[in-house]
Amino acid sequence: MYTEKRVRAFTEKIFKAIGCSAKEARLAADVLVSADLRGVDSHGVARLAGYVRLYDLGRLNPTPDIRLLHETPSTAVLDGDRGLGLVVAPHAMRLAMKKAKRSGTGWVAIQNSNHFGIAGYHAMLGLDQDMIGWAMTNAAPLVVPTFATEKLLGTNPIAIAIPAGEEEPFVLDFATTAVAYGKMEILQRLGKPAPWGWVQDADGNPTQNAHAVREGGGLLPLGGDREHGSHKGYGLGAMVDILSGVLSGANFGPWVPPFATAGFHTSDTEQVGKGTGHFVGAMRIDAFQPADQFKGKLDHWIQRFRSAQHIEGQPVQIPGDQERHFMAERRQNGIPLNEKVVESLVDLGKRFNVTW
Amino acid sequence: MYTEKRVRAFTEKIFKAIGCSAKEARLAADVLVSADLRGVDSHGVARLAGYVRLYDLGRLNPTPDIRLLHETPSTAVLDGDRGLGLVVAPHAMRLAMKKAKRSGTGWVAIQNSNHFGIAGYHAMLGLDQDMIGWAMTNAAPLVVPTFATEKLLGTNPIAIAIPAGEEEPFVLDFATTAVAYGKMEILQRLGKPAPWGWVQDADGNPTQNAHAVREGGGLLPLGGDREHGSHKGYGLGAMVDILSGVLSGANFGPWVPPFATAGFHTSDTEQVGKGTGHFVGAMRIDAFQPADQFKGKLDHWIQRFRSAQHIEGQPVQIPGDQERHFMAERRQNGIPLNEKVVESLVDLGKRFNVTW
Repeated sequence: MYTEKRVRAFTEKIFKAIGCSAKEARLAADVLVSADLRGVDSHGVARLAGYVRLYDLGRLNPTPDIRLLHETPSTAVLDGDRGLGLVVAPHAMRLAMKKAKRSGTGWVAIQNSNHFGIAGYHAMLGLDQDMIGWAMTNAAPLVVPTFATEKLLGTNPIAIAIPAGEEEPFVLDFATTAVAYGKMEILQRLGKPAPWGWVQDADGNPTQNAHAVREGGGLLPLGGDREHGSHKGYGLGAMVDILSGVLSGANFGPWVPPFATAGFHTSDTEQVGKGTGHFVGAMRIDAFQPADQFKGKLDHWIQRFRSAQHIEGQPVQIPGDQERHFMAERRQNGIPLNEKVVESLVDLGKRFNVTW
Repeated sequence: MYTEKRVRAFTEKIFKAIGCSAKEARLAADVLVSADLRGVDSHGVARLAGYVRLYDLGRLNPTPDIRLLHETPSTAVLDGDRGLGLVVAPHAMRLAMKKAKRSGTGWVAIQNSNHFGIAGYHAMLGLDQDMIGWAMTNAAPLVVPTFATEKLLGTNPIAIAIPAGEEEPFVLDFATTAVAYGKMEILQRLGKPAPWGWVQDADGNPTQNAHAVREGGGLLPLGGDREHGSHKGYGLGAMVDILSGVLSGANFGPWVPPFATAGFHTSDTEQVGKGTGHFVGAMRIDAFQPADQFKGKLDHWIQRFRSAQHIEGQPVQIPGDQERHFMAERRQNGIPLNEKVVESLVDLGKRFNVTW
């Protein structure tokens, strides 16, 4: 177990070491450590070495000049200047919130960015100001559309965060696949098979091979197969790709560049846009009804769902509950880090002369 | 087989017979006939008798005075005055589009409405004006949240329509469940079992009983079970409920009133808002980038996905393809109507002295 403080300080120093400003290093570290605290281990400091590798490859600009390309009262398009998505996405979200203050809502599409960490972090930025936040991103192709035998979509997550009153906020944050790729990596490490319905092989057959994605197969969209609605998961992932990639001027579909650690390569010969794309939004609650009234009603909603009749021993959860449970526990007891992750951090520490 | 013209003319006359204006009767008929043409048989004229029953029950106002309750440059809340959702939702969509013209995007939450037919119809209204359209609605509870043994959510559909250039538009329109309830009704009529993963029984166990929803069970969220991501489908359905119901001031969760034909009853003792709620939105493409440039890129996206390597005999479809296929075929050969549906239309004809 490693204390939040230690992980945070180290991560911040590494981002500074590759040239990020103090302020942006702090923000980037906050996004990663949030993932570790919230139990999304695959998106936390496990990826720190990956961001550094993006930097080594010349794909990451540690001092981005994020530029406004176009705007209307409720929209904007930003060029992330190859910055860390961890920094570019909060910047975009702040702009969306500024627009929401004036116009009721604000929607920002971002091109030329990189992996932005957990979508939920960005969506949650508006909660304090009584705003509903949205965040989505495209990502390198790991997912097969329904009936396809090639990977054309990323795990393309969607997050929406909605403020409540006395209750904790509603925070939905999910990959548009049956499971996130991180769960396949856990099975790979354990040498265990995948449940049916998570992945298919290179010929499009169902498989339990946890290595299938690296062997020509692909992750299945939410729904699993056509009979259980995989065309809906595929459609959602496609929507995320179109809003984040096509609408922003970033790459899209099979052309989204891989995150450096993923170990997957797409052909660099064709570029259909700039970098990775995101799409974020903010909706001011009181652009619809008084915020206190809304929050009181959402409390009622949450209480009704939380107290639903349920399967023995399995109470109904509100989106965000699981992550909050992890956070309370890990703030108390520390963050567990996989042995290989710790090794990668030790290596980074040596390289940049930062104590782990 | 029945010609589009015949079905449309009859439907329009029935709506006029219950007191709708000529213009609104034409619009309402257009929404229903669109569903039949697009192959969504459960949402077409099969429901006409249901709308009339809502009228008989005093829950439907055929001459609604749709009122603006609140607005900002990019948002509004409407009171549908117990009108047909078929009429109220397009009205709201036009307001969203008007706001999008001025502010880039427009978002309208609607309370005090009724069932609005297929979500895709409303989302598609912006296509001609190079706008991305959104539509969602809550509905009477048929769906169990993950781990729940009671129904708290409707099938809560989401539609998004995105204009392309030479290609047909991207039109995603789906219930946030493994399957729409209409598919269960088909199995009931045929006396066939449901596939595993569609429905659970009253105790929360998996079942193949196609009647389970009427016997204390419930439809499963998209994903099916927790291992395959049902918490994501539940979260999406919840999001639709919160935006359509809580944010608009309509009923939400288990309190959404039943559609008259569904045969399900919720307790009328508690009302947490007014009627059924919808949420629609419009985003002007050129609030982000020149529309022609975007549409050219979406053509490229569509062509790449449509030509993807695929399972033998099963080409990859673009959201909207299936509905367009149905429409081309049914415009040519007519609309097939179930015997019971025809009986219901004959009865309506007799009652209102309209020739079927």
